[in-house]
Amino acid sequence: MDSEALGFMRDTIPFWNKLNIEQQKNLVHAAVVKNFKAGDSLHAGDEDCSGLFIIMTGRVRAFIISETGKEITLYRLFERDICLFSASCIIKNINFEVMAEAETDSRAILIPTLIVNNLLKQSVEASEYMNELLASRFSDVMWVMEQVLFMSFDRRLAIFILEQANFEGSDTLKITHETIARHMGSAREVVSRMLKYFNDEGMVELFRGGLKIKDRKRLTDLV
Amino acid sequence: MDSEALGFMRDTIPFWNKLNIEQQKNLVHAAVVKNFKAGDSLHAGDEDCSGLFIIMTGRVRAFIISETGKEITLYRLFERDICLFSASCIIKNINFEVMAEAETDSRAILIPTLIVNNLLKQSVEASEYMNELLASRFSDVMWVMEQVLFMSFDRRLAIFILEQANFEGSDTLKITHETIARHMGSAREVVSRMLKYFNDEGMVELFRGGLKIKDRKRLTDLV
Repeated sequence: MDSEALGFMRDTIPFWNKLNIEQQKNLVHAAVVKNFKAGDSLHAGDEDCSGLFIIMTGRVRAFIISETGKEITLYRLFERDICLFSASCIIKNINFEVMAEAETDSRAILIPTLIVNNLLKQSVEASEYMNELLASRFSDVMWVMEQVLFMSFDRRLAIFILEQANFEGSDTLKITHETIARHMGSAREVVSRMLKYFNDEGMVELFRGGLKIKDRKRLTDLV
Repeated sequence: MDSEALGFMRDTIPFWNKLNIEQQKNLVHAAVVKNFKAGDSLHAGDEDCSGLFIIMTGRVRAFIISETGKEITLYRLFERDICLFSASCIIKNINFEVMAEAETDSRAILIPTLIVNNLLKQSVEASEYMNELLASRFSDVMWVMEQVLFMSFDRRLAIFILEQANFEGSDTLKITHETIARHMGSAREVVSRMLKYFNDEGMVELFRGGLKIKDRKRLTDLV
């Protein structure tokens, strides 16, 4: 690991200073930097338990997938976020599968499972931090669940479009109805119908392979 | 606390033997037994942070509720289960509200927030156990989410009916369509329509204020 990655790791792990020299050494020795291309998988289900990833650059999407291939996005990870479910085997009682894939070219530090496991057994601060991480992802998932269960679809779609524009830093989104449906765990027809309504109302403009935000205020009002 | 409750607490807390005498004493001193009538609330949102409840007898339902009053059941707690979200204020990053209410007359040991908080800071075993608890509830919620997102409604309803019969120890359920809809985060009309289909197919028999399972095998096949 180069000194940049090392410094990044030290800064990002909140309990670094609570570790003893031995524990810090083991961590530095075991951690490796991994590069991912957009579309690469960081974690492909529960048989894949490489360890915790600390995202250095890029954007990672966590999602679940049904037997029939239906997906829904649970949350996204950015710089300094930690990908937890790639180490889910070390936490007892996790019996679901979260996938993680790079949405843009990404760089991450991998802390292997064995090291994480030892730390959790030795350091109450590490274990406490794991509680916080779990709680944080739990909150993300509950938010998605409340959206899906309780929120009208126009509101969810408006949120999705505004979020996506935010990620991309542009009001023009190159994204198909099919892909939007996949992110939202919905059907393409449902997305197309609602987008057509947004288009007719002048909130967005549809074009082949994407859309453009035309009336940000009205979209925001929907939210 | 009487000796029965004390023995129960010792048996139920998996890290009891890892605590020192002082910690054990503090726990025993602070814990109290609480009785709940069916319908009573154990926990009514995040302003209510009394502590962890260990269920001694009865059945407790955990659920979320929307602004408009729509509910969905997340999981149920039985003897020896621990109600976590009544102590959610001690876990950083939990920003959602889970309600808990007694479904039958219930008895529970309350371990107050302050004691739980101290234990989590002192004992890596306590903190590890909290991780397991969080992960376990997370798994329950992911299961509900996958059901809601990915599963057809007939299958969900069949699962609900079979589970409910299991809880009640009877094939005759006194439950309204309205209540079933509430548990499943659905609308009464949707439930009624599907129940009528189950009835017409001879899988259940509907009567005023309830239903009876007539063909357990076909219901199970649906699942």
